[in-house]
This record gives sequence, C-alpha cells and structure tokens, in this order.
Amino acid sequence: MPGAWTKKDLLGLDDLNKEEIELILSTAESFKEVSTREIKKVPALRGKTVVNLFYEPSTRTRVSFEIAAKRLSADVINIASETSSVRKGETLIDTGKNIEALKVDIIVIRHNYSGAAAMLARNVHASVINAGDGWHEHPTQALLDMFTLKEKLGRIEGLNVSIVGDIAHSRVARSNIWGLTKLGANVTVCAPKMLIPPAIGQMRVKVTSDIDEALADADAVNVLRMQFERDAQNAFPQQLEYFRHFGITKERLQKAKKGIIVMHPGPLNRGIEISSEIADGPNSVILEQVTNGIAVRMAALFLAAQANENISHENTD
Amino acid sequence: MPGAWTKKDLLGLDDLNKEEIELILSTAESFKEVSTREIKKVPALRGKTVVNLFYEPSTRTRVSFEIAAKRLSADVINIASETSSVRKGETLIDTGKNIEALKVDIIVIRHNYSGAAAMLARNVHASVINAGDGWHEHPTQALLDMFTLKEKLGRIEGLNVSIVGDIAHSRVARSNIWGLTKLGANVTVCAPKMLIPPAIGQMRVKVTSDIDEALADADAVNVLRMQFERDAQNAFPQQLEYFRHFGITKERLQKAKKGIIVMHPGPLNRGIEISSEIADGPNSVILEQVTNGIAVRMAALFLAAQANENISHENTD
Amino acid sequence: MPGAWTKKDLLGLDDLNKEEIELILSTAESFKEVSTREIKKVPALRGKTVVNLFYEPSTRTRVSFEIAAKRLSADVINIASETSSVRKGETLIDTGKNIEALKVDIIVIRHNYSGAAAMLARNVHASVINAGDGWHEHPTQALLDMFTLKEKLGRIEGLNVSIVGDIAHSRVARSNIWGLTKLGANVTVCAPKMLIPPAIGQMRVKVTSDIDEALADADAVNVLRMQFERDAQNAFPQQLEYFRHFGITKERLQKAKKGIIVMHPGPLNRGIEISSEIADGPNSVILEQVTNGIAVRMAALFLAAQANENISHENTD
Repeated sequence: MPGAWTKKDLLGLDDLNKEEIELILSTAESFKEVSTREIKKVPALRGKTVVNLFYEPSTRTRVSFEIAAKRLSADVINIASETSSVRKGETLIDTGKNIEALKVDIIVIRHNYSGAAAMLARNVHASVINAGDGWHEHPTQALLDMFTLKEKLGRIEGLNVSIVGDIAHSRVARSNIWGLTKLGANVTVCAPKMLIPPAIGQMRVKVTSDIDEALADADAVNVLRMQFERDAQNAFPQQLEYFRHFGITKERLQKAKKGIIVMHPGPLNRGIEISSEIADGPNSVILEQVTNGIAVRMAALFLAAQANENISHENTD
Repeated sequence: MPGAWTKKDLLGLDDLNKEEIELILSTAESFKEVSTREIKKVPALRGKTVVNLFYEPSTRTRVSFEIAAKRLSADVINIASETSSVRKGETLIDTGKNIEALKVDIIVIRHNYSGAAAMLARNVHASVINAGDGWHEHPTQALLDMFTLKEKLGRIEGLNVSIVGDIAHSRVARSNIWGLTKLGANVTVCAPKMLIPPAIGQMRVKVTSDIDEALADADAVNVLRMQFERDAQNAFPQQLEYFRHFGITKERLQKAKKGIIVMHPGPLNRGIEISSEIADGPNSVILEQVTNGIAVRMAALFLAAQANENISHENTD
Repeated sequence: MPGAWTKKDLLGLDDLNKEEIELILSTAESFKEVSTREIKKVPALRGKTVVNLFYEPSTRTRVSFEIAAKRLSADVINIASETSSVRKGETLIDTGKNIEALKVDIIVIRHNYSGAAAMLARNVHASVINAGDGWHEHPTQALLDMFTLKEKLGRIEGLNVSIVGDIAHSRVARSNIWGLTKLGANVTVCAPKMLIPPAIGQMRVKVTSDIDEALADADAVNVLRMQFERDAQNAFPQQLEYFRHFGITKERLQKAKKGIIVMHPGPLNRGIEISSEIADGPNSVILEQVTNGIAVRMAALFLAAQANENISHENTD
C-alpha cells in the first residue's frame, strides 16, 4: 500500500499530512461495507484490547468507537471518569501508565483539557486516539465529515465548505479546518464576531459574520452545535437571536447552490442552529455522517493497531 | 415453522395474537437448554448489534437482555440515559435515528413514558423490543411469567391466575392480562379499590379487593411489587396496612389450592407484599422466572432479528 | 496436576493453605504469557458468564477482572450498585440468588462490608471471587503482590517483607499478611500506633512504628495508600506529617538493602505515602503489579470455573 500508516497515535489533523488523511479515508471506505453485511464483523483486531477512557460524558462518540471496535472483533473496556480512580486524585499520566500496564493496545480518550490526548500519548506505548480534547481537536469527527463530503460530492479538493457556529470553542471546527485545507478545500468560517478565535488569521480560511455570504458559493455547510445550555437563564433570547441571524433555514438555503450538503456533528438543537425542515430535508446528510463515523473509527483503530505492532516488532527485533 | 414471526418489533402483548405469543413461548423453550450447557452460547446473532437503551435504571432487565444477547453471540451496547445525549435535550426520535444510523439491528428500550417504545418503533427500521414503557406494557416480563406457568402447570388455557397489587400503575399487570386472556386463562385482579384502573371493565378479568377471594380458586398468583418508596415518609404505616390486607402469607396460602404457584417480578419487598416464608417456600417459582427470562429474551431477540432480516431483504430485492 | 483446585470460591487467603496459594501463583504464571501475544485470548472460559458486582466504585479492580475474563473468552456483565436493584432495597442474598438464576458461572464481588463475599458464597452455587470486602480481605491483590515478589526475587520463603501504612483499615494488608506468612515470609507491619489493629498480636508479624527499622532488613516494602480524602478539611497537615514520618523517600531507601522492591496497590498519593522519585524509580515494581494482576485474576477465574464444574458434575452424576 503506498504511504502505509506509521504513526502510533491519532491526535489531530494538524499533525497529519495529506497522504495520511487520504489513507484513513480510503481505509474507511473499505470498512464501510462491513456494517452492511448480515454478519457485521471482521477478525482484524481479535484479541486486541481497546479502552474507551472518557473524562466527559459523550454517549455518541463512545458508542460509535465501541461498535467500531467490536465490529473489528476487539475486546472493549469502557472507563468513565465519574467512577474512576480519577476521583481519587490520580493524574492522567498515572492513569495512562496503569491502563498500559494492563497490556492494552489502544486507548480512545475524551478529555475536557486541550492537549490531554497528546500528553497521554507521550507517556504510553499503547496507541492513543483523540476522541475530543477541550477546544483543541476531534479528528475522527472531522474525518467522518470529510468522508461524507467525498462520498456525496466525489472529491474534497476545490470544494467550498462553510463552517457555521461557535468557531472559537469548537474542536470540530478546528479539526475540519486543518483537514479540509490540507486536502485542498476552500474553507469559510461564519460566526458572530465574539465567537471567532483571535488566531483565525493563521489558518487559511475566509472569515465572515454574514450567513448569506457564507452560504452563497458553498458546496457544503457544516453547522456546529450551539452550547447555550451552560448559561441556561439567559439562553432563550440568545437562542432566538442566534437562530434569526445564523440559523440554517429553508429561506437561506434557497439562495445557496442547489445541491448544497448540510452537515451537523449532533446532537441537534432544532430551531436554534438549524430548522427541522433542513435537518430532515433532502440536503441533510446528518445521519449518513453517523453511519460513516463507524467506518472512519474502524479505520483509525485498525491503522493505529497495525502501526503499533510494527513499532513494537522493531523494538524487540 | 407454522406461523413464522413477521413483526419487526415486540411492543406489547396487546398487539399480538394467540399464535404469535405461542410462537415466542415455544422458541423460548428451545433456547432454555442453551443456558444449561457447559458452553452457554449459540451463534444465532453473531455479528448483530443489540443496543440496550435504558431511560430508567433497571439492572435486572438490562442484565437479563444483555446475557440473552451475548448467549446468542450478538454484540451488546448499553446506553443509560444518565450519561446520554438525552441530557443534551435530544428527542427520543433523534436518538433512535442516530442509533439506527449506527447499523444496529435491535434496540431494547426501557422508558418512563407509556408509548415510547411504539413511537421509537415507528421511526426506525431496526427492531424495537419494549423492556417496559411507563404504565403501559412490559411484554417480556409477562411472557416469562406465562412461560413459567406453562412449564410448571403444563398449560395456560383454563388456568385461574390472580394478579395482586397496584394494578393501576403496573405494566407487568397489563401485559399479563393481555397475554393470559388471549391464551385462555381466567384472570382475576386484586387490589385496594384506588389501585384498580378505571378502564379495567374493558379487560376480560374479574376484579376484587378481597385477597382470600382472589386466592380461593387460583392455580397461580402473581404478586406485584409495591412501590411505597416514592412516598417514603408515609410509607411505613401504609406498608404494614398493605401487608395486613393483601400480603401473601402462609396463613392465606393454606386456604388456597395445594399446588398454587407464587410468582413475583422482583425485586421483592419482603414483609410488604409477600412474606419471606412464601417467597422462599415450595410454592414460589420466583427464581425460576428469572431463569426463564433469559430464554424468553433470547427468543424475542432471535425472532425480531429474523423478521427484520426478512423485511430488509424484501426491501432490497 | 498435584493438588488440583477444589474450592468453589476465592474469599480470602486466610482460608487457603500453602499448596492452594502456590497453585494459583503457578497457574497465573502460565497465563501471564497470554497478554504478551499478538492475539491476547484463549478459549478457556468461552460460553461462561462472569458478573462483576461492585458495591463500591473501583475502576482498577473492575477493569482488571473484566480484561482477565475477556482474555479467557468469557462473557462479562458489569453491575454497579449505583444503578442496581440494591437501591430498591434488595438484600445481598436476594441479589445473589437472582444473579445465580441467570445461570452465571462466577460472581466477582466488591463490597464495603467485611464478610459480604463469604455471605454471598454461602448462598449461591456460582463461584464467588472476593474483589475486596470492607477491611477484611482483598485476596487477588495480595496474590498479585506475591506473584510479583516471586517473579522479581525468585522466591517468597524467607523474604523480609514490610507493609507500611494504615494496617488497621487495610484489606490489602490483611490478605498479604495471611498469604506471605503461609508461604514462609517474615512480615513486618509499620504504622502510627493508632493505625495498628489491636488483634495484630494474633498474626505472626513484627510490629513497629519506626519506618527506618521497617526498611532496615526488608527485601520488599509494600506501601499502602493513605485515605486522607475522607476527612478532607484536616487532611493537608496530616498528609505532610505522615509523609515526614512514614513516606517512602530516596533518603530512607538509601539506608535499605540495595535491591529492595517497592510495591503499592495504587492509586498512588504522590508526596503522601511515597515520593515520585521512588514511585517511578528503579526499585518500583508498581506497574508490573498491575500487569501481574491480569495473570492472577485469569488464574482465579479459571480455577474457580473448573472447580465449580467438577462440583456440579458430582451433583448431577
């Protein structure tokens, strides 16, 4: 295979080059079919142990990784921070070293601190897959977004992709920007000014606060989830205001390209960042993203396990 | 097989006819033996994915379904609402559609709202098995009760079965009434008047508030769990009062038929709805019900998966 | 095999004789290699069901047993008391009998009451493995400590082993004392006087409150976790005081035997009972203990299942 995978970990798309991203996407393509079989299972990771180490609750991402690992025949162990030694004050590095000592092959980590996945990866020989770390990256989400784009539109190079929502605090946005620009897409981010990160100038993207401008030439729009629930008492007027200015509605899409693809990482806030009509309409590929998440995570687990085995063999030879 | 299973879902016994109920019971019979083998496993659902989606905590039912699915070699994913996207305000339909997008075969749902299982079933292609929805139905509980009756007494037709306890708020009672009457049993319900549902007249059952009358001709008595814990400060005198008027005791059973079968869905409130002497005595089949729960749930999962496959094939051919 | 395992349960090392302890350790030796294979799995417990019944949260022990069981190809069901029928007031015996009725082979129990594992074992035919009961015993922890000692130092007989920390409230200390003395080690316990149990005189150990004395001749030191978090407001000065008088530091170890082995059951309180320099240093075998925990628990599960099968066959023949 040209450009075989050599990295122990998958921490973010910022770390990967074009060939590596393409390798994950093409590996995912070959795994997608497994989930359509009558017996949805291949023996690729039989006898491997995958730990889902989740410091933030996230049923969707945990379940997607768990199903992906099980369809590869791996043994899966779930650890949620609510019930873990973390409560007894153990550091992330100690937790990681203890998990590694169990002869685990892959640790999938979700953590509220940016950089947690990388810190863990530096301290264990097991492969680490970042399932979201703070505001930093959520690489498998971006990869499944790209997989879906490629599947629907035939390519990523040259596409105009707009990302709408709280760019400043979104690991989904960040991973998408790195991945899409490396594969040659033209990315526009659209948000209220206070939700645009100051460092956006260093990323090769167009910035706007005008939703109609963001949609005008877009081949696809990726609608981020707004997290108003953290500030519940003030949320309602803010939500209406946000919907009025940035909500993806039928009216706005009618002015966009006819075949525009609408994506969303879920879970949806219907009537806040997107209208139900659009979320459930013909342009939406939101549920296909969920399906593709399994294929992309199977690919990530498979490549990480393979690379780690090669690395281990080098060490012992 | 005469009268093969054709339904995608198992939502309640109200929806099934006599032949369908009998098919589940006879399928369960053939699965019961699996749990007595040295290797308690058959490959029937290998490569299938079963999701336990529990919006109410219920270790017993969840564990029973989990073991049933694993003995059929399925992959099982547990989702508890405490840690799920539900907390982020996702609707049941969105949750269902997202789970379906993971190419899941069967969703086992426990929900506090009556009708939740049916609503989910209407919105997904995956099979839905109702593991208890509000006060509505708990079909696999009633099926395991009937399985146990048949195993112990050789038949269901013509049996006199009394159900004692909070009939008004019991999905177990409701499912048993539908199932038993369809199979030709004579059902009596016995409860304080305020715990008899107003619509009881439409069900073909005898109603009484006299426990001795309920026990007089009964071949079996199904003792429901009383839920006094919801109103804890007033519970104690109520509990004593309940036990005095409706508790199943040695004294009361001595006036009943000699071989009367005592059933209870668990967990037991010893000294409230039943005395320990009876719960642990020779008439009790309470633990056999638990054992039979595995066989009945294996049957439900197996038939649902099979029907769904046939339906899917029709769709794609 | 000389001295084959005949006990249904593993409740504590107080119950076992020297030969039984050695049988577990040698069985663990043969399983250790499994976790170094590319496919970390043997079919020994295929089709068996193992339940992890945890009334206290303990991610480390639960995960270790879960991985051990899965590497033996067993089906594993996790039950945590937070979400179980226990909350509905079911007694431990009822819970046990219900789990047994599910045709489960092994119940691994962690409970906050001393004697809970033994009480469960008396009431079920399934094998019971004690994963820690109150202040009583934690046999698999002591077995993995002994396995590590033997692996590192070639033997247990005649070794000088010091256990430092809250002896009075430690099931790890108690199990180690029983096991080590039965295998001929010389055990010293070291703690502030109020953390020495009054009954220590009945155990064949040396007692001291002088850490330097405890370390002087020791071949190994087992450092217990201090549980100051229960009394958080007063903890900080106590912690400093404890570290000053009993903390395992470089200065103290320099006066000990050169190859002294440092053990800790985890999770570590760095800077309280042990300095980071020592925890991560060349004398520490803390992470190897974690690795060996898998092998020891595979052995415990394997032997218990085998004994139970023999017992059951006797019953039915």
